[in-house]
Amino acid sequence: MAKAPKNAISPTREEDYPEWYQQAVKGADLAENSPVRGCMVIKPWGYAIWENMQRVLDQMFKDTGHQNAYFPLFIPLSYLEKEAAHVEGFAKECAVVTHHRLEAAPGGGLVPTGKLEEPLVVRPTSETIIGAMYAKWVQSYRDLPILINQWANVVRWELRTRLFLRTTEFLWQEGHTAHATEQEAVEETLRMLDVYTAFAQDYMAMPVVKGEKTAGERFPGAVNTYSIEAMMQDRKALQAGTSHFLGQNFSRAQEIKFLNQEGKETFAWTTSWGVSTRLVGALVMMHGDDDGIVVPPRLAPQHVVILPIFRNDEERAGVMEYCQRVQKELTAATYDGQPVRAMIDARDLRGGDKMWQHVKKGVPLRLEIGPRDVAGDSVFVGRRDTSTKQPMPRAELLGTIAERLTEIQQNLFARALAFREQNTHQIDDREEFIRFFTPRSEDKPEIHGGFAMSHYAESPEVAELLAKLKVTIRCLPQSGQPGSDDTPGRCIFTGQPSQRRAVFAKAY
Amino acid sequence: MAKAPKNAISPTREEDYPEWYQQAVKGADLAENSPVRGCMVIKPWGYAIWENMQRVLDQMFKDTGHQNAYFPLFIPLSYLEKEAAHVEGFAKECAVVTHHRLEAAPGGGLVPTGKLEEPLVVRPTSETIIGAMYAKWVQSYRDLPILINQWANVVRWELRTRLFLRTTEFLWQEGHTAHATEQEAVEETLRMLDVYTAFAQDYMAMPVVKGEKTAGERFPGAVNTYSIEAMMQDRKALQAGTSHFLGQNFSRAQEIKFLNQEGKETFAWTTSWGVSTRLVGALVMMHGDDDGIVVPPRLAPQHVVILPIFRNDEERAGVMEYCQRVQKELTAATYDGQPVRAMIDARDLRGGDKMWQHVKKGVPLRLEIGPRDVAGDSVFVGRRDTSTKQPMPRAELLGTIAERLTEIQQNLFARALAFREQNTHQIDDREEFIRFFTPRSEDKPEIHGGFAMSHYAESPEVAELLAKLKVTIRCLPQSGQPGSDDTPGRCIFTGQPSQRRAVFAKAY
Repeated sequence: MAKAPKNAISPTREEDYPEWYQQAVKGADLAENSPVRGCMVIKPWGYAIWENMQRVLDQMFKDTGHQNAYFPLFIPLSYLEKEAAHVEGFAKECAVVTHHRLEAAPGGGLVPTGKLEEPLVVRPTSETIIGAMYAKWVQSYRDLPILINQWANVVRWELRTRLFLRTTEFLWQEGHTAHATEQEAVEETLRMLDVYTAFAQDYMAMPVVKGEKTAGERFPGAVNTYSIEAMMQDRKALQAGTSHFLGQNFSRAQEIKFLNQEGKETFAWTTSWGVSTRLVGALVMMHGDDDGIVVPPRLAPQHVVILPIFRNDEERAGVMEYCQRVQKELTAATYDGQPVRAMIDARDLRGGDKMWQHVKKGVPLRLEIGPRDVAGDSVFVGRRDTSTKQPMPRAELLGTIAERLTEIQQNLFARALAFREQNTHQIDDREEFIRFFTPRSEDKPEIHGGFAMSHYAESPEVAELLAKLKVTIRCLPQSGQPGSDDTPGRCIFTGQPSQRRAVFAKAY
Repeated sequence: MAKAPKNAISPTREEDYPEWYQQAVKGADLAENSPVRGCMVIKPWGYAIWENMQRVLDQMFKDTGHQNAYFPLFIPLSYLEKEAAHVEGFAKECAVVTHHRLEAAPGGGLVPTGKLEEPLVVRPTSETIIGAMYAKWVQSYRDLPILINQWANVVRWELRTRLFLRTTEFLWQEGHTAHATEQEAVEETLRMLDVYTAFAQDYMAMPVVKGEKTAGERFPGAVNTYSIEAMMQDRKALQAGTSHFLGQNFSRAQEIKFLNQEGKETFAWTTSWGVSTRLVGALVMMHGDDDGIVVPPRLAPQHVVILPIFRNDEERAGVMEYCQRVQKELTAATYDGQPVRAMIDARDLRGGDKMWQHVKKGVPLRLEIGPRDVAGDSVFVGRRDTSTKQPMPRAELLGTIAERLTEIQQNLFARALAFREQNTHQIDDREEFIRFFTPRSEDKPEIHGGFAMSHYAESPEVAELLAKLKVTIRCLPQSGQPGSDDTPGRCIFTGQPSQRRAVFAKAY
């Protein structure tokens, strides 16, 4: 075995968190930049994690009564313009199709020709084009609710991009629903926020705070926006999913109207909600360590990787046979309602290099199996989340595989929750707030901050201070959320009355 | 119950096949045109069929060693230009992004601004952008093969579109592989042709002829193109999937090269292969009848729809309870390795209207359940493929559900195969060939033709005649295919020697 390097990822999180992130993504072979500005290539391991996220979310959506459908990639400019706040919010980042063919230029090469009468915008989100269809589909209250989700790619022209976290093109799901009453639409908005919360916590092992966004952070055109917010290991917040109550703003702009039970023409109440490949970035930053990413078992493309170790052909035969037997036995076992996913990596590579590849990819359990393990009917188990290794009788591993994976899943959540709790503080004083968000040392600018739970009232003064500190209001946590506080108080900046504390943090 | 109309779809297939297709798609609520020229909206029932196709194909791809990944939507113009035949083939149908933001125009409204230095083409297919990445990933023979598939949307600007069959944007999968040797790449090309054949026949219940395309019908840039061809009910051929051996054409253009085992720099051998949402259109045309579409059980979003029938609240309670029991028992049964999919349609709609909706949607089995069925512990079973109805003890249905669905699946295939065989002819005479493809009556222009298996040799004369008849060479069937014939002969048009018969047909 090759001697282990001190850490598989350089720099460490503490040395340079943003660069650690890039190297962790690269080390796990999740994705890389493409020659197309701001667009990434999602590589097989990264895409397999996204597929697992899709599979789980898709079932959650179906279990809450939604169906999938697919709407056009292109939105006519005039449709985007219908909702004023909406177009204002997206105009600066739209990819625009203006021509529909290429022709040889006199000087060589090709130039766009066939100019379109009306430019088409590559969807940055689909409220307007989906709403146009709903306007056709909805005539009577009997046509409602419409509960549809779409898995799709969207494009928002970004100047500064980071793999998964902010890219020009990204993959997402966008739910779009229309309802007969305001109450139903509000309930739907909050139901999907709960679905996202359950997904983040139960599958990604990522504790989140759920709550309403302030006016300045709303989705363009929404009446209310709700989000789930997670604390990354640099103590910054990451918005991991949003659910929007759109009121009648879009239905008025697009004439989604119906005859209600009293025969009166009424505008529908609509919602939209989405999560994206950004979640893969969140997973990296949530659980990764200085050896690479750590994938929670419930989303891991492989639960177990088996690494055969041998020095010659004679050893090879016995070791491979044993490995295949262990694989077969593992995949006959069940974890999380599915067969355990176990692969053998028999590539002709040095054992140490091979092992470190799987460490960096965050496979929950590694089994190293050599001739001595075969002789002793045992396996040598490496556990990714705790970086511990131990020999174990084969039968013991097989009898406890589901429990072990469950334990890893729970440990990841508990560890993340403890970290967030350590770094969440009720702050009732302006100076303390400023100190909390001010770097403590020039050398390590990121070792400060976290979530500050403070009373505040909206005012230009507060906005200015927050901008200076590069701090944002993440959300107003729902009652009963960890750290929420429904006791009224006074804005720590202005002394104005405040109904409840908000979560403040630096953010991605 | 409402009196049944003579046929649920008007016109019938015989009256006007193209219009029947549009009405069958509409009647099943599969898809509709969007306000965006040539782009369709895939509605929930149509998308659910596509999802089932995806699920099965995805597993077949994984079982043959492929992994999914995701590449950018946009292709820089200069990348598309690298392979001459390729760009020539797609230049006339490219959507081109030229700007990346919108700004308020002086006269009101928005105009595109932020002109891109290099225009971006919305992918019509991804050989060039994926190849650019493979060039980075491949250094040594140890990096090969690369076996990747992508599920994505693509855009080809079409002037005349038809739902599913030809749309500007469509959904598809595109496999892209790179290999160290020519033989491996050829084997991959043919392996995926076999996967498509198995999918078409075993899941879509759609018999296909597989074979090589002639030079004029090759994918732009390919060395060889292979396809599967199915006969629709108007006797026209539909190309349902293609697999391309790209030789070293793309790897030379994009410098996908590696050091082989002898340490010599070599260009990789590549393939690509794809099927699209066009398959949903094929399914409609393959099995639909004058009452609407018929979905093969293995791809049906619902295997069974249960229709409760009652006249008052008192009857309602008993009927619904019984329906729920039957649903529960059905979904506890297994068909094709999965739980039987059974839904209750309890909407407040007239029974006849409701039943006909499900007929038009092609649900394999319908159970009508009223108070008398409850009393007799029976169900009234409507079978979609044969349009037969019969009462049956509940226990009998439950005990035979998997067999019944299997029988429907087999019947659909057998029926389609018999139709194709009836309409496939070896034609050895020029005049007979012309007669075969010439409409027999002005009133019913479509009742003629089919697959003609004839000897031919490429020549301008043949090309001209075929163009005049609107007939194309579909493929050169592989040996052993139904209708294939490896006996050499002479071109029926020119008398030149011919190695084997080709399949000729009018086509979609």
